Amino acid sequence: MPPVIALLTDFGLTDAYVGIMKGVLLSICPTAQLVDLTHDIPPQQVRQAAYVLLTAYRYFPSDTVFLIVVDPGVGTARAPIAVETAHGRFVAPDNGVLSYVLQETPARLAVTLTQEAFHLREVSQTFHGRDIFSPVAAHLAQGTPLTALGPERHELVTLPPPRLSASSGTVEGEVWHIDRFGNLITSIGHLYWDGPDSLQFTPRFGAQIEAPRQFIASACRVQIGPHNVGPIRHTYGAVPPRTLTALVGSAGQLEIGINQGHAAQALGVTIGDPVLLHFV
Amino acid sequence: MPPVIALLTDFGLTDAYVGIMKGVLLSICPTAQLVDLTHDIPPQQVRQAAYVLLTAYRYFPSDTVFLIVVDPGVGTARAPIAVETAHGRFVAPDNGVLSYVLQETPARLAVTLTQEAFHLREVSQTFHGRDIFSPVAAHLAQGTPLTALGPERHELVTLPPPRLSASSGTVEGEVWHIDRFGNLITSIGHLYWDGPDSLQFTPRFGAQIEAPRQFIASACRVQIGPHNVGPIRHTYGAVPPRTLTALVGSAGQLEIGINQGHAAQALGVTIGDPVLLHFV
Amino acid sequence: MPPVIALLTDFGLTDAYVGIMKGVLLSICPTAQLVDLTHDIPPQQVRQAAYVLLTAYRYFPSDTVFLIVVDPGVGTARAPIAVETAHGRFVAPDNGVLSYVLQETPARLAVTLTQEAFHLREVSQTFHGRDIFSPVAAHLAQGTPLTALGPERHELVTLPPPRLSASSGTVEGEVWHIDRFGNLITSIGHLYWDGPDSLQFTPRFGAQIEAPRQFIASACRVQIGPHNVGPIRHTYGAVPPRTLTALVGSAGQLEIGINQGHAAQALGVTIGDPVLLHFV
Repeated sequence: MPPVIALLTDFGLTDAYVGIMKGVLLSICPTAQLVDLTHDIPPQQVRQAAYVLLTAYRYFPSDTVFLIVVDPGVGTARAPIAVETAHGRFVAPDNGVLSYVLQETPARLAVTLTQEAFHLREVSQTFHGRDIFSPVAAHLAQGTPLTALGPERHELVTLPPPRLSASSGTVEGEVWHIDRFGNLITSIGHLYWDGPDSLQFTPRFGAQIEAPRQFIASACRVQIGPHNVGPIRHTYGAVPPRTLTALVGSAGQLEIGINQGHAAQALGVTIGDPVLLHFV
Repeated sequence: MPPVIALLTDFGLTDAYVGIMKGVLLSICPTAQLVDLTHDIPPQQVRQAAYVLLTAYRYFPSDTVFLIVVDPGVGTARAPIAVETAHGRFVAPDNGVLSYVLQETPARLAVTLTQEAFHLREVSQTFHGRDIFSPVAAHLAQGTPLTALGPERHELVTLPPPRLSASSGTVEGEVWHIDRFGNLITSIGHLYWDGPDSLQFTPRFGAQIEAPRQFIASACRVQIGPHNVGPIRHTYGAVPPRTLTALVGSAGQLEIGINQGHAAQALGVTIGDPVLLHFV
Repeated sequence: MPPVIALLTDFGLTDAYVGIMKGVLLSICPTAQLVDLTHDIPPQQVRQAAYVLLTAYRYFPSDTVFLIVVDPGVGTARAPIAVETAHGRFVAPDNGVLSYVLQETPARLAVTLTQEAFHLREVSQTFHGRDIFSPVAAHLAQGTPLTALGPERHELVTLPPPRLSASSGTVEGEVWHIDRFGNLITSIGHLYWDGPDSLQFTPRFGAQIEAPRQFIASACRVQIGPHNVGPIRHTYGAVPPRTLTALVGSAGQLEIGINQGHAAQALGVTIGDPVLLHFV
């Protein structure tokens, strides 16, 4: 089976930076299946990249190599690393971009990429994606073991998980991500339908909060700023077009959107804004 | 030969939705050649997706699996389907997105995707592209026959063909699509040069209209709104830069554009606007 | 090893033009590895495409086929060509788009694409990317020799190299490219760090200018318009966020940017603006 290398960067597709990385990858690992997660992470937004990676990695073959270059610190002291887990190997700068994945699927081994034999011969100071991360990812995909790439690394930079707390019948989270449809993906989850009107709630990342682990969907209320969104529905189609609703998004998080509309623009909401889930 | 799976969605490339679908595809069909048709269909514009698919499918190997997810009705009663033709197999929601292709290349067999063995184990209510359409497309590419996926479906949702009529020496059509260069692709076609100044006209989808099946290109006049565009030329280069002209577009339709300019913006035209072809 | 075909166009990804070309490529060369360099060259900007290709081609396997369709003259007299070099084969319109590459890596052989057996059966007047360039590129990747495609071509259209001159302790160049981060890539290069504070300067394309071939980085000054940018640094991280700096970009050219900012917008600079490097 051809090895899979999945790419996640903030390079955009207007320049050839991503194409150049693929040239390097195929020069070393000619049979690789190359998949783009996205290259439209806003420049240097490590947290957005960490979220996107979390929603994606489990849908790939478990020996996939994920190549992540969202790297505001390129050329400075931040280390380049590779990390092995039960669901994928990850090549990235050590800046927290793997945090969410590793909070869900622990690292088996992490190394610092010091072995220059696995880098390009000439390493620039501004494009480690091409000169270090891509050749290392390709060698991993070709079968090089992680231990060959550099010494074990015991501490990794970690982002805090998104806000999630509870008190007296209310869970408070935040807008964690906004997708291109304008839907607001919140930090309230993981939610799972276990009946037509019953939801299981398993707080992500093992958050210890005082909230029911099961509740009646039609008896809750979602609120964002001054907007009462109503209960959690099964699908956007459950409300008329142009209507605000809450539902369980495709990553298992509470999501707020407008059927055939753009919630973020309509409500003037940005990432980090608080979201409330009331059990009534 | 590696099987080809061609993807067409309205998911954009800013989120990882398309990347996630590819993870699912490669988990089931590791050797697939994955090709993006486009993911920039305006959200939920089924008609635009149907047009784009029509212009593309015949250029692919005839056993290609086309995976189309432009699906305003996700999670509602609209059915997920697979359709087999002489020029490709198609996996899509039953919302009319296959209409134009099927008006040109009839369905041999259509089925409703009820067999859950070919879906992901957990099916969300909001991302059938990942949970139903992708795994089904990958199984088809791997060799699963259409008949295994669900029961035969006898009626499919159908979009009307684009407007095309004729009276007393004039063909009336509409702007059917606007491409990224601002060129206006019209419903007037299929046109084919059978001589330096002679065009054959075979109305698409078998439309029965009273118009000549062959005419002299230099003796016709194209009109859009108040603009007299002139006769049909061979190429944009036939007129000076910044000049409006009509020609036969790459899909065989009458096209109106500005050499090195953006006709849609310059003329203030939108999809659906009427276009006239006068035989003079 | 699967052959690599790398695509560079101005077609964008909103329409399916690129996807259709890939359908043609895979119909002829089913095992090809298809890589996108970029499809976001501004419409018909041959010079920008030539620059992007220059920065990319050496990172690909040396038998890669590069398929370049930035073609303002489609359908007119400009010839379609294929060119073989020691670092790749190139299929393109003869409009200068290969100039920079060929100034660095000379053509071994160039041919005009007259052999219609290697084109699609029906050739449109508006989409040679689909009907001529793609099938030819796929046949090359499949092993067809260049000589089979048409007669040898002895003269190719050539763009002038970017401006680069020197006088009395100052090198004058121009803004050659602006990337999506807003960084200004200049015509001053190739630069190479041969010590912590020492740069080698080998003018690109063999330009004969009166400037030192080695200089002290901290003792030079970069200037653009009224802005004194300071000396050449190793990395953006060497200056505080939001600060203008000069460094050696990933293609070895003098680059001006703002750490975590957008230099082109902040300075109001466009392609072609003069840039000065003073040795002080």
